[in-house]
Amino acid sequence: MTAPAIDRERLLARLRQLGEVGADPRGGRTRLALSEEDRAGRDLVAGWMRQAGASVHVDRIGNMHAVLEGSGGGAPVMTGSHIDTVRRAGAYDGCYGVVAGIEVLDAIARLPGRPARTVVATAFTNEEGVRFAPDLLGSRVLAKDISLDEALAAVSGDGAVLGAELERIGYAGRDSPWRFLPAAFVELHIEQGPVLDRDGARIGIVRGVQGYSWWQVSIAGRANHAGTTPMDMRLDAGAAAMSLAAELAERARREGVPRVATVGTFELEPAAINVVPGRAVFTVDFRDLDDETLREAERRLRRALRRLDERGYATSMQCLARTAAVRFDAALCDEIAGLAAAARLPCADMHSGASHDAQMMAGICPTAMIFVPSKDGISHNPQEHTEPADLAAGAGLLLETMLQLAQAGGRTAQHKGNEHGITRL
Amino acid sequence: MTAPAIDRERLLARLRQLGEVGADPRGGRTRLALSEEDRAGRDLVAGWMRQAGASVHVDRIGNMHAVLEGSGGGAPVMTGSHIDTVRRAGAYDGCYGVVAGIEVLDAIARLPGRPARTVVATAFTNEEGVRFAPDLLGSRVLAKDISLDEALAAVSGDGAVLGAELERIGYAGRDSPWRFLPAAFVELHIEQGPVLDRDGARIGIVRGVQGYSWWQVSIAGRANHAGTTPMDMRLDAGAAAMSLAAELAERARREGVPRVATVGTFELEPAAINVVPGRAVFTVDFRDLDDETLREAERRLRRALRRLDERGYATSMQCLARTAAVRFDAALCDEIAGLAAAARLPCADMHSGASHDAQMMAGICPTAMIFVPSKDGISHNPQEHTEPADLAAGAGLLLETMLQLAQAGGRTAQHKGNEHGITRL
Repeated sequence: MTAPAIDRERLLARLRQLGEVGADPRGGRTRLALSEEDRAGRDLVAGWMRQAGASVHVDRIGNMHAVLEGSGGGAPVMTGSHIDTVRRAGAYDGCYGVVAGIEVLDAIARLPGRPARTVVATAFTNEEGVRFAPDLLGSRVLAKDISLDEALAAVSGDGAVLGAELERIGYAGRDSPWRFLPAAFVELHIEQGPVLDRDGARIGIVRGVQGYSWWQVSIAGRANHAGTTPMDMRLDAGAAAMSLAAELAERARREGVPRVATVGTFELEPAAINVVPGRAVFTVDFRDLDDETLREAERRLRRALRRLDERGYATSMQCLARTAAVRFDAALCDEIAGLAAAARLPCADMHSGASHDAQMMAGICPTAMIFVPSKDGISHNPQEHTEPADLAAGAGLLLETMLQLAQAGGRTAQHKGNEHGITRL
Repeated sequence: MTAPAIDRERLLARLRQLGEVGADPRGGRTRLALSEEDRAGRDLVAGWMRQAGASVHVDRIGNMHAVLEGSGGGAPVMTGSHIDTVRRAGAYDGCYGVVAGIEVLDAIARLPGRPARTVVATAFTNEEGVRFAPDLLGSRVLAKDISLDEALAAVSGDGAVLGAELERIGYAGRDSPWRFLPAAFVELHIEQGPVLDRDGARIGIVRGVQGYSWWQVSIAGRANHAGTTPMDMRLDAGAAAMSLAAELAERARREGVPRVATVGTFELEPAAINVVPGRAVFTVDFRDLDDETLREAERRLRRALRRLDERGYATSMQCLARTAAVRFDAALCDEIAGLAAAARLPCADMHSGASHDAQMMAGICPTAMIFVPSKDGISHNPQEHTEPADLAAGAGLLLETMLQLAQAGGRTAQHKGNEHGITRL
């Protein structure tokens, strides 16, 4: 068998070309799920899929599957990501995994013989969750995290119904979302964080995705004149909230519990320079790879608020969102690390702080993710950048990985009886 | 000489009546300076001034002076406050001092003989500064803190020119603002803070007005993904700002330096739950009776920002406003305290955290203020409340004080050569 290879220049050219679809006058590109721009991006991707020699199957939730039939039997192996974007996005988030997946299929199709298993490269619907909630929608349906009917009934902020939007843009497919249910799934993605870039590693072996716990905290004190009210007679909701919020971040920094804590929004009432704040409302974003540690952070927040209540404040905390941490398949991760080492790619074990379709897929089959560096960790931003050499190296590693998975009798057989209890391989 | 007395019921009835002028559909009353509502209030007050037997003089900046001629010579003695309000104001802020001043004149007019000095009860123009800047406008002109021409040229947010508005409402007087330049000034006012109410004192002897120092502080860090950015790689502008702001308030509470510190507004950018704040902007309101202490607080803030700069943040602080502290005339304050003690009114030395016309008058003559309690310290609010007994007691003390000042050869003669270097008495 000839050594397979990624067409590096075409990979880069296609990323540029896809990045021009939905170019935003304010910078970057905006290709919200099931918009006209998404349709144009999908059309482009479908053409590339066919050009790779794959058959293109659109399922009922709009996921696009490029399918390269294997020579043997068994469940297919899948790679994939998404091409919908946030507003004013970079060119690589999601798109990199989709375009590289198609290049992988193309490279495999050019081999003299086909691997035993069918290989599928997928573009999932509405990963970002900007237009329709929840996020990760296409993979969520595959993983039966929500029902197909519920997903099709999702309504956007502008009143559009997801199912009707799929029809409108011509991507309401007839295939069952579960037709190509895979025996293993690997997602290639930019890191969207600064760790690989800082540490000089080219490849991140993603061991899991952090769970997150989002809260809105409200602290009511007493609004008073900032000149006439002595400090010892104040119930300054702003000062109490700031002190608490600063401590949350400081503890995460000092003790690593939880791994990260962020107060991203913070509002005061009445918000006047010369009035002691009567009310403060802020959000807290806790993330950790360990669910118990997340719960401990929540309990500590609750105790801190109770102490404020005892001092006369009236506090509340409301959960805005909560996801469990996900651990990827350890053996599959080890295998990818081995392939990276064989290719002399400096790699590092890490986790993902952001959500990805792979975390849904992890619920139904052995799953892993491969990260490549994001310059300065910048993402969801037109400045998002990954070096061409890293883009090519990541795609090459994905190719090796998918080939390994697709060859019957490969090392992936050991995944039988893994922690997910799924034994399709 | 018959013992003079305030007509308590009429005082209360007039406060109620004036409080109905400009009743705001959203609650309270809104009588912005030189508005139609202010005109209606002024008409009411002018009638009461005449009813008291005083001649009414409107000066060129619109200050209204009720003048009760004395039997002897020398400069007049003056009391006064204002009837313009903030939006949705209470009924007592300013109005109490004006209505009580008229009652004082009325009581003095009913005495069988007139005191030696002329007694003036004044309603100053645009004290609140809501419609026209600067605040304390009428007394500022008297104290030559700004020129008459500059004051007349002040433009409101809605584009109105102060001089033209005075003409429009019929209160562009022909008198010189300095015609009744007083030998002493006493302002009676509600406390607008909680101290008297808490401590059970009925009268506050106001020893001075705090200076204030207002700043806008900006801290720029680096916006990052709240999931993918490890704590040790963040420049979290929000956490840095909250930590600093909480410390400012905590230090004022713990050390009393400055006496009060308030962070009343606080904004984050980009203000998203899952983005590490890249920028925080907040205001600081420092107040103290001692200017050097205020400057020390400013220096400390500047040093704290410099430490953040050294850690990679980009900070700035911009002065929004700054006023020097004012000390009232100690001997006059002592004299009022003596009169309160003689009347068996529990009184307490204090200072004012809010601005008042008296602080301008302190620049030109021996000046003092008398406070009465504000229930729960609430002011600039429809809920503003002072007990009728306290309103009457304060007005009675003002009457005693003005009589004392107006009687030639009274104890006020000792004010000659006071700290202001003014020796008109």
